[in-house]
Amino acid sequence: MKELTSITKLTNSFSKLPGVGVKSAERMAYAVLGMCDEDVAEFTDAMIKVKENIHKCPICGVYTEDETCDICSDETRDHSLICVVSDPKDVLAMEKMNSFNGVYHVLGGVIAISKGKGADSLSIDALIDRVKSGGVKEIILATSSTLDGETTAMFVAKLLEGLDVTVTRLGYGLPMGASLDYADSLTLAKAFEGRKKI
Amino acid sequence: MKELTSITKLTNSFSKLPGVGVKSAERMAYAVLGMCDEDVAEFTDAMIKVKENIHKCPICGVYTEDETCDICSDETRDHSLICVVSDPKDVLAMEKMNSFNGVYHVLGGVIAISKGKGADSLSIDALIDRVKSGGVKEIILATSSTLDGETTAMFVAKLLEGLDVTVTRLGYGLPMGASLDYADSLTLAKAFEGRKKI
Repeated sequence: MKELTSITKLTNSFSKLPGVGVKSAERMAYAVLGMCDEDVAEFTDAMIKVKENIHKCPICGVYTEDETCDICSDETRDHSLICVVSDPKDVLAMEKMNSFNGVYHVLGGVIAISKGKGADSLSIDALIDRVKSGGVKEIILATSSTLDGETTAMFVAKLLEGLDVTVTRLGYGLPMGASLDYADSLTLAKAFEGRKKI
Repeated sequence: MKELTSITKLTNSFSKLPGVGVKSAERMAYAVLGMCDEDVAEFTDAMIKVKENIHKCPICGVYTEDETCDICSDETRDHSLICVVSDPKDVLAMEKMNSFNGVYHVLGGVIAISKGKGADSLSIDALIDRVKSGGVKEIILATSSTLDGETTAMFVAKLLEGLDVTVTRLGYGLPMGASLDYADSLTLAKAFEGRKKI
């Protein structure tokens, strides 16, 4: 049976998405074939709109559909407190927490020495400019607790040295709701280090 | 943080695909945002092309980009042997097996009494016309071995009674309760070998 070129091409596009293998991608391509024209038009339109309407906030780098994001333009938030994350999606997770009232700065990645990825592509200069322009009291480094995340946090902290700002790092320890015997030893050691008097 | 309307819309479209939940759909929407413009254009183009270029073969109902599908127009295949499947995708699985040299007939679904889906929407009349027009020796009913698949096979077999054609059903090499498009080729081959007259 001859291959359907259109299906192969669409399968190829779907398989570029995260967590989608070739078999699922093919199923998805056939699902598109089975959709009504209206749904497909809506789908392609949504895809184009996402690229057209969304850009990064020029101040913090969070995705927004407005000129600057609603966090940066919110006067009720504490602009002296900047939480530094590697990815715009991390801000979503932070905001769901509903207990942080500062603003953000998105680096746009991490330093990954193993992959030859340096600090050049990261938005670190912009962060330093924000600090230098004054009014910033604390920088919370909230990159992941992976090797690359740690390296990045240390690198940024080093560059902020000497500036009039407190630099902190997210606390380490047991994740909430986790069973102790599932925690790895590094996490446990960190939890011991960070123990608090009650 | 304000919701990004464009992301919500695209997430909604992605979650209409089979096997994609809201969380994965959101990840996919962000992945599209992270793609280069060229990849997104290719993606939307592939989606439109799938709908534009592919239609059902007027003889057997298999998806094709040509006027009639390459199986129906292949003179080296045995046109006296028709394998009846419920879905165009099932033909792909059959063809991967590489041991069936007959032709196909796609019903376009199954009778699903529980969902109130009857035989009206299925391409059964067209199958009977093919048999009546002569030259057909055997009909292999290859619907899935689910309740609905069995019901459909029995229903079609009943309608073919009295016509000068042998009606067979795929052997139970198929594991019961499994969907046909997930069967591996060896199982499918065994099922072909073990087909029985009904």
